[in-house]
Formats: sequence, structure tokens, C-alpha cells
Amino acid sequence: MSESENQPDKSRKLSRRTLLGGAATIAVALVQTSFAKGVQIGIPERADDPTKRMGVPPGEVGTRSSFEKVVKKPSDISSRTPLQDLHGTITPSDLHFERHHNGVPALDPAKYELTIHGLVDHPTVFSLADLKRFPSVSRIAFLECSGNFRTGKETMTPQEICGLTSQSEWTGVRLSTLFREVGVKPAASWFLAEGGDAALMTRSIPVRKGWDDAIIAYAQNGEALRPEQGYPVRLFLPGWEGNTSVKWLRRLELGDAPWQTREETSKYTEVIKGGKIRQFSFDIDARSIITFPAYPAQVDRGWIEIRGLAWSGRGKVVQVEVSTDSGKNWQLAELQEPILDKAHVRFRYLWRWNGAETEIMSRVTDETGYVQPTFAQLIDARGVDTGSYHFNPITAWQIKPDGRVLNRPENWR
Amino acid sequence: MSESENQPDKSRKLSRRTLLGGAATIAVALVQTSFAKGVQIGIPERADDPTKRMGVPPGEVGTRSSFEKVVKKPSDISSRTPLQDLHGTITPSDLHFERHHNGVPALDPAKYELTIHGLVDHPTVFSLADLKRFPSVSRIAFLECSGNFRTGKETMTPQEICGLTSQSEWTGVRLSTLFREVGVKPAASWFLAEGGDAALMTRSIPVRKGWDDAIIAYAQNGEALRPEQGYPVRLFLPGWEGNTSVKWLRRLELGDAPWQTREETSKYTEVIKGGKIRQFSFDIDARSIITFPAYPAQVDRGWIEIRGLAWSGRGKVVQVEVSTDSGKNWQLAELQEPILDKAHVRFRYLWRWNGAETEIMSRVTDETGYVQPTFAQLIDARGVDTGSYHFNPITAWQIKPDGRVLNRPENWR
Repeated sequence: MSESENQPDKSRKLSRRTLLGGAATIAVALVQTSFAKGVQIGIPERADDPTKRMGVPPGEVGTRSSFEKVVKKPSDISSRTPLQDLHGTITPSDLHFERHHNGVPALDPAKYELTIHGLVDHPTVFSLADLKRFPSVSRIAFLECSGNFRTGKETMTPQEICGLTSQSEWTGVRLSTLFREVGVKPAASWFLAEGGDAALMTRSIPVRKGWDDAIIAYAQNGEALRPEQGYPVRLFLPGWEGNTSVKWLRRLELGDAPWQTREETSKYTEVIKGGKIRQFSFDIDARSIITFPAYPAQVDRGWIEIRGLAWSGRGKVVQVEVSTDSGKNWQLAELQEPILDKAHVRFRYLWRWNGAETEIMSRVTDETGYVQPTFAQLIDARGVDTGSYHFNPITAWQIKPDGRVLNRPENWR
Repeated sequence: MSESENQPDKSRKLSRRTLLGGAATIAVALVQTSFAKGVQIGIPERADDPTKRMGVPPGEVGTRSSFEKVVKKPSDISSRTPLQDLHGTITPSDLHFERHHNGVPALDPAKYELTIHGLVDHPTVFSLADLKRFPSVSRIAFLECSGNFRTGKETMTPQEICGLTSQSEWTGVRLSTLFREVGVKPAASWFLAEGGDAALMTRSIPVRKGWDDAIIAYAQNGEALRPEQGYPVRLFLPGWEGNTSVKWLRRLELGDAPWQTREETSKYTEVIKGGKIRQFSFDIDARSIITFPAYPAQVDRGWIEIRGLAWSGRGKVVQVEVSTDSGKNWQLAELQEPILDKAHVRFRYLWRWNGAETEIMSRVTDETGYVQPTFAQLIDARGVDTGSYHFNPITAWQIKPDGRVLNRPENWR
């Protein structure tokens, strides 16, 4: 398919017959009959005709349709966003992935306190009301767990492969504002972020991230944070591995060296070339995945809009390429504006499937020039015994002649 | 306050003492005592210490905190977004305002059909699956009811004054794509949009809007439309009065004149100068409102970040000005990026209140040069007997010496 065909205003080239099958022909007959009788076209009468009885009145809070079954399929320690069921880029707050280390605490916002101390001029305890009085900022950005890769069988959904990434509009106070407020000393080079959950989740963060774009967030998608996302207050570090955005944040301590906490020694490090261990690998590498068609979808031959998500923790997505011939040729996908910094971007590519078995896949390039690697490139760099942290390989889907879509074996270890 | 002071990186000028009152002083004492004893600073022990017991495990779907009481306060025919409780620009889907004319129907998506007929080459019935196969588009945009103005007393919230506006990321197929699919005839200049609810809500829409930016939407904030928002499919006309974005859409008929339906003759028209009636007033005029501080907030003297929303149905917001002296002087507010076309924009302005009684208000200018009018200007243009459609006056809040914030009597009729 030529690149020029892959434009939204070229959809007139779609064959109606191909796209809709028999429905259009039936419709023509229906409409013409209706007109011949001189009656206005209408929907056939049904016993349960919703136009014949009053519906449900407005409510205090809306509901999801009972026909929609979108769930996060939780394990004991996490739950995953159903990427294959979603559209656009915003994740509904109740479908944001969860990953916590000892459950979700129930915190009373009236009792909430954030203490900032250590290498500062004015150690301070902030209430939630204090934090909300400061100048605020909002940004739409993704949050991804560093351990966001699973594989091992053909029948895996995008949710199962990499559902530990979600996107929200976060609002809060810039950490730099609080740093000025407490007077962070020049000697401070790291800070400890401590959560108020039963895991006392702690991470060491370079102070430069605090001065750069860190947010002390109290709102998500317009409303207060959800409990699973750190209610009432979390740290939010745009583009950095999720566990550093410490939830239920209760303490920040400024110091001059990392604390070497449990979560940065026993966990959240990864093997690199030569058997060494990489520590403090904060940035989320650029990644993309096709979310449609993907298992469990089954497709018909003809026009298919390939849809997916791409993101980078190092800045903006520059391009997404799609291959529909198992990686031999690549074409540019269309990116949905606005393309935001450190944010999920929706990509789309119009493909005409001829019914032959093939593989489809996507690869993203970010503004640093980084190109999403293949599975083989990652194994070559880290060895076969690497864990699953920061594992962002190109993910391919097999398209079977009967239209089934399956996770590709070459994704496996 | 000079304009240069109203910058985010000037927050160091905030007085900690002013901003936080006594809390900071207490905190210093606490921390110093802790250090003197050689113990690490911590949160005081509590009987219900959440760090001492495991929290709730991950769930299939997240929940709102039981401490958060955000509701839409429904009437029989509508419910309103609690603007004073929200942050950023995205409205949670279950807090999106509702306005329907005979309740919310429960529609089975498997039975859903959209018929397009009239002045077209190929009258067609589309299933939901058909619609989802077409090339898709997403955009973040507001939706506002044309009847979004109430006043009459001092104790009114932003929700009560103008809570019939909300914002979502909408996804669907461009109507222009379907127009090409069915072959809209050159003679077609209007189309009828008919809802499948018990009101059979119908509106006549110029065909040019269909070719421009109309969307046949099936998703909202990532997931399927909510029932109250038209599940499974609605028309979405960016920037146009909400009732034209017909929900539960079941039929589009192309024709060469408007249909003069009940909802465009008995309703949704407004008085203009000379006692005439304006019909087909589709565009939402630019508007802004301060959402904090606003009733029922009570504020303390000192630094206050004034926060609000601004929007225009005719394009982008160019600037928002804020007055803190009852309209005598105006300063530019900061606008949160990205500033999107036909979208709510969050504005912020840092103000130091000296404790004297005053009034605060905002006014927006959009890219067409249109400036939000005063209440008096609107009355002058339309007369005192005008209805409440397309009523977008500058809204002022009284700040009382005791810090109470009240709707200004001059907003009244």
C-alpha cells in the first residue's frame, strides 16, 4: 500500500461492499420499499422498543453500560489496563493499572500530612489543604510499570502482554515549588520518597528530577486521585518507571546519596551486557504496541485500520512505523494530534489484508532518536536470563488465514 | 500585582508563613525534636495506622475514595458537572453533565443500527461493528448545553450556574467518511439527526458541519460511551450546542432544507435585538468562569491561586483576563498547555488578597476576536425577557471580608 493511500481523506477509496458485506444491499431494498409505500423509513417495531418507554432519569453519578465488560483481571499484586478494549489515549481512572506492594490503604484526607525534611532550610509538614493552596499544574502523561512485559503463549492480549501502562491528566503542585518553599540546600543531590502504605514503599530520586518536572499530584482525570493511585497524594515523575511515582506519599527526605532501599536493590534493577546489573534505570524506553487487531480479535480480509499506542519516557514520539509483512517493509502510521511530551500517542494505519498469513508489528522512534528494539536485540544486549524490567520489544501479531490474531512465538523467551 | 509576578517560577516569592499559617512553625519544632533524640522523623503512631495492616488488593475495576463526595445533583431532566470540585480539563465520564428529553434508554449494542438515507446514492444501515471498522479519529473537546445559565441567589456554585459543560476525549468515525461511503448528493444541504430514545430527539444540521468536523462517536475517555452520553453511538459536533450532538443516534436523513423539528422551533431559539427570534444558533460562544475561589469556598487573606475554565465553540482560546478589583483592571491569566481547538482550557492567576471586600471575575477572548460579554451587554442585545439559551456573561464572585465567596447580585436578572 502506498503511503498516499494511508490518509484519512482517502477513505472514499474503501469499497463499501468489501467493508460492509451484505448489509448495504439489504438496506437499499428496505429503504426503497419504505419509500414506495410512501412511509418514512423507520426502525422495525420491536417488543422492547426503547423509543416507546421513558428511560432512566439523570443520576448523581453516571454508570457504565451493563453490556460493557471491561475489567483489569487482577492478580494479588497488580491489575492491568485492558488496552485492547480502549480507544484514544485517556485511560478511565477506574481502569488505570494497579501495582502495589502491600495493598491499597484507606487514607483520611483530613489527617493527611506530607513531611519534607533533611537537607532543607525549613523542614515542613504540609496538609492536603496546604498543598492545594500552592500554584498548580496539569499535564496528560502516561505511567508505566518498569516490569511491564509478559509473554509465553499465543493467546495473550495486549492487556496481558503490557497492560501495566495507563494515561491520565494529572494535577498537583510542582515539586520545585515545594523545594523552594522548604529551601532545599545546594548539597542535596537525592531525595527519598516514602509512601504511607503497609509496604512503606521507598525510592531514592535524584534532586534534579524534582527541580525538572516532578509533580506532587492530588488529582487525576479531573477528580481526586483514586485510592489505588495514591489517594490523597502521590509523587508523579513524568516518563520514569512507575514505582518511583510513590503513592500515598507521606515523606520526602533530602540527602546527598541514594538510600539503597529494598525496592532499588532487591528489585527494579536489570541485567545488562557482561552480566552487570543496572541500577536507577529511571527512564521508560520508547515502546509501541498494536492494540487492534490483536488477540482475541478475529478479522475479515479487506480494509483493516491497524490501531495502537506509542510512548516514550524521554520526550515526544516522532514516528511510528508499521510492518504488515513480518518486518520486511515498514510504512509510517498516522499519529493522532496532539502529540504530547511523555504521553501515550494513538497511531493508526489503514491496511488491506488479502487473507494470506502474515505478521503485523509496530516500532516507535522518539525525539532522542531512540528506535524501539527487537526482542533479539534486547536479548543480545542483556542475555537470556534478564528479568522483565525495562523490556520493550517490538511486539508482533500473527494473522492466521482464518482471521485469528495471535501473539507471535518469536516474542517468547 | 504586576504581570511578571504571575509566573509559575516566581512561587519562591510566596511567604511560607502567609501561605501555611502556623503549620510550618509547628513542623520545625517537631523535626528538630526528633533529630535531637537521634530518631528518624516519622508520622506519629496511630491506632488506625495504615502502614501496620495490609491494604485492599487490586480489583477488576477501581473505586472512588469513600471520602470523596462528588455528585451531579440531578433534576428530572438534567444533571450538572461539579466544576468547583474538579481540576485540570478532563471530566470523569460519570460526572459528565446529563441532559435528556425522555430519559436514558438501555440499548443493546448487538442490535444497534444507524441508517443513513435521503439524498444519498447508497442508503445504508450500519451496525456498530461496521462503524468501528472505518478509519477512526479522537479529539479532546468540550460539550455544553445551550441552556447553561442559571442565577438568582448569592449561594450558587459554578455547578449550579453553568455545570452543563463537560469535556471528554471522543473517539469515532468522521461523519465525512460515512458521507463518502453513502455518496451524499450535491443537492443535500441539511441532514436530520434522530435519536433512538423515547423523545426521538431530532435536529436539523447543515451538511457542511458533517463534512467539517462532525464525529459519529462510540467512545469517550478511552472506553465505550456511557449510557447517559448516547451509548452505543452519538453524533458529536465539536463546538456546537449540546442538543445537536444527538445521543443514541439511529438515523441520519440527507435533505435540502431544515426539518423544523420540535427541538428547533419550540426550543433552542433565542430572542435577539428587536424582539426577533434567532434560530439555528449552533455555535457555543466563548465563555469562562472562575471555579476557585467560588461558592461554597471560604478563603483566607494572602496568596490565592484563582483557577477556572475557558472555552469557545469557534476555535481556540487566545487569552483569559482576570480582574480582582470588580472589573476596573484586568491581568492576563496563565493558560495550561496544550490549548486545544473547541476545548476547555484551564486558566490560573496568582492573587494576593489583602482582606478587603472585592469582586473577582474572568473574561475570555477566542481566536475570532470575540470577547466574553458582560451581563448588561447581553441584556442590551436581547432584552430582559430573553431565555437562558446561549447566555455566557462574565461571572463575578464577591469576596466578603470574612472570606466567604458569593455569586454577585449583578449576575442576576
